[in-house]
Amino acid sequence: MEKGKLLYEGKAKQLFQTNESEVIWVEYLNQATALNGAKKDQIKGKGELNNRITSLIFDYLKSKKIKNHFIKRLSANEQLIQAVEIIPLEVVVRNVAAGSFSKRLAIPEGTSLSLPIVEFYYKKDELDDPMVIDDHILFLQIASTEEIAQLRQLALEVNHALIELFDSIDIQLIDFKLEFGRQKEGSLLLADEVSPDTCRLWDKKTNEHLDKDIYRRDLGDIVPVYQEVLNRLEKRGK
Amino acid sequence: MEKGKLLYEGKAKQLFQTNESEVIWVEYLNQATALNGAKKDQIKGKGELNNRITSLIFDYLKSKKIKNHFIKRLSANEQLIQAVEIIPLEVVVRNVAAGSFSKRLAIPEGTSLSLPIVEFYYKKDELDDPMVIDDHILFLQIASTEEIAQLRQLALEVNHALIELFDSIDIQLIDFKLEFGRQKEGSLLLADEVSPDTCRLWDKKTNEHLDKDIYRRDLGDIVPVYQEVLNRLEKRGK
Repeated sequence: MEKGKLLYEGKAKQLFQTNESEVIWVEYLNQATALNGAKKDQIKGKGELNNRITSLIFDYLKSKKIKNHFIKRLSANEQLIQAVEIIPLEVVVRNVAAGSFSKRLAIPEGTSLSLPIVEFYYKKDELDDPMVIDDHILFLQIASTEEIAQLRQLALEVNHALIELFDSIDIQLIDFKLEFGRQKEGSLLLADEVSPDTCRLWDKKTNEHLDKDIYRRDLGDIVPVYQEVLNRLEKRGK
Repeated sequence: MEKGKLLYEGKAKQLFQTNESEVIWVEYLNQATALNGAKKDQIKGKGELNNRITSLIFDYLKSKKIKNHFIKRLSANEQLIQAVEIIPLEVVVRNVAAGSFSKRLAIPEGTSLSLPIVEFYYKKDELDDPMVIDDHILFLQIASTEEIAQLRQLALEVNHALIELFDSIDIQLIDFKLEFGRQKEGSLLLADEVSPDTCRLWDKKTNEHLDKDIYRRDLGDIVPVYQEVLNRLEKRGK
């Protein structure tokens, strides 16, 4: 497999063409951002940690019959993924109140939600990723009614699998963000990444943050925290 | 009917008890507010205009078999309504992009929506009335799944009737906000008011604002504009 030209540069990853049109080469960057890019830092080791964690989690999800775009990890900070047309929605699943949910509705962080809540946000930096309802998604022609139902269903299946995974390593899955892509023949596929950048993870015993809130809220260095998540995932695999 | 003690003071209305427990005495105030109360003014004549307009519209909706809380108009700025337990949701129906919808999603004002869009906002001044999805409404125990479906259905029926009404007086119904109440036996009833305070109304020929945007956007005096809406409604009735 040969690495081709840069296709897209995101906040935490670069995507490159390869000699196969259906395969994308991903490089995880040592960059952390928050507040829609207003806060930005270079953090040595972050790219490798998220690449390793995402690779392990996508493999785990495959073992749980949840299809996703991950092909294989190439190196410390690189992986190959399947090319898909990304649907510009952030699909957020919440099991416990935290972050923007807590703020918007005045629900104390840590409040258990009796049922998981699925929210959609329109991925549009200029608009600050506004929350959207089904009617908005249809009007914007982002996805069809059937696709919205599938996204919700897939997100809940991922939630079920991830709760089990994190529970087995003494981590509570508070909430997380997923992105999906459309394959050539039209079916939906889990894409992007699943890492402490995209999940809120709390230590089950201490309630300590094991995720990007450490960076967002200036609580310390994320590298040892992400390393701890990776260590637990790797130990579990053995 | 006797007017009793003040039960509730809103931004544009006062509600009073009466000697009948199921009947509320409403006084429309000469007060305009915007930006969640940050902008506030006394405007002579506004209370009377909205009381008259709402009374006419609620009577019209009754003639269209849409049940609502309106009993009768008592005086220039007073009316009697049925007591209900107000559901703390603003149910917004949009036919044409405007206001917060245009801002949040970068859709130019005046863009026709192929299908009406129904949004729910949690009525909570401290939180600035955040938009909520069904999952939030259920979690907050504001309404049941069945009630949410009914609210949506009722809002669309009101929309259908109001489009017809306003179209007949050369006004385009851009969007509007409804509130609903629960009756003792549990069924939902349209409540609050329907007026240029709660609807965006554009003159069909000139696209001029005939609604509270005149006040919100400092475009002039609302009294002649609301008077124009009332005149057209009254002329239609003859």
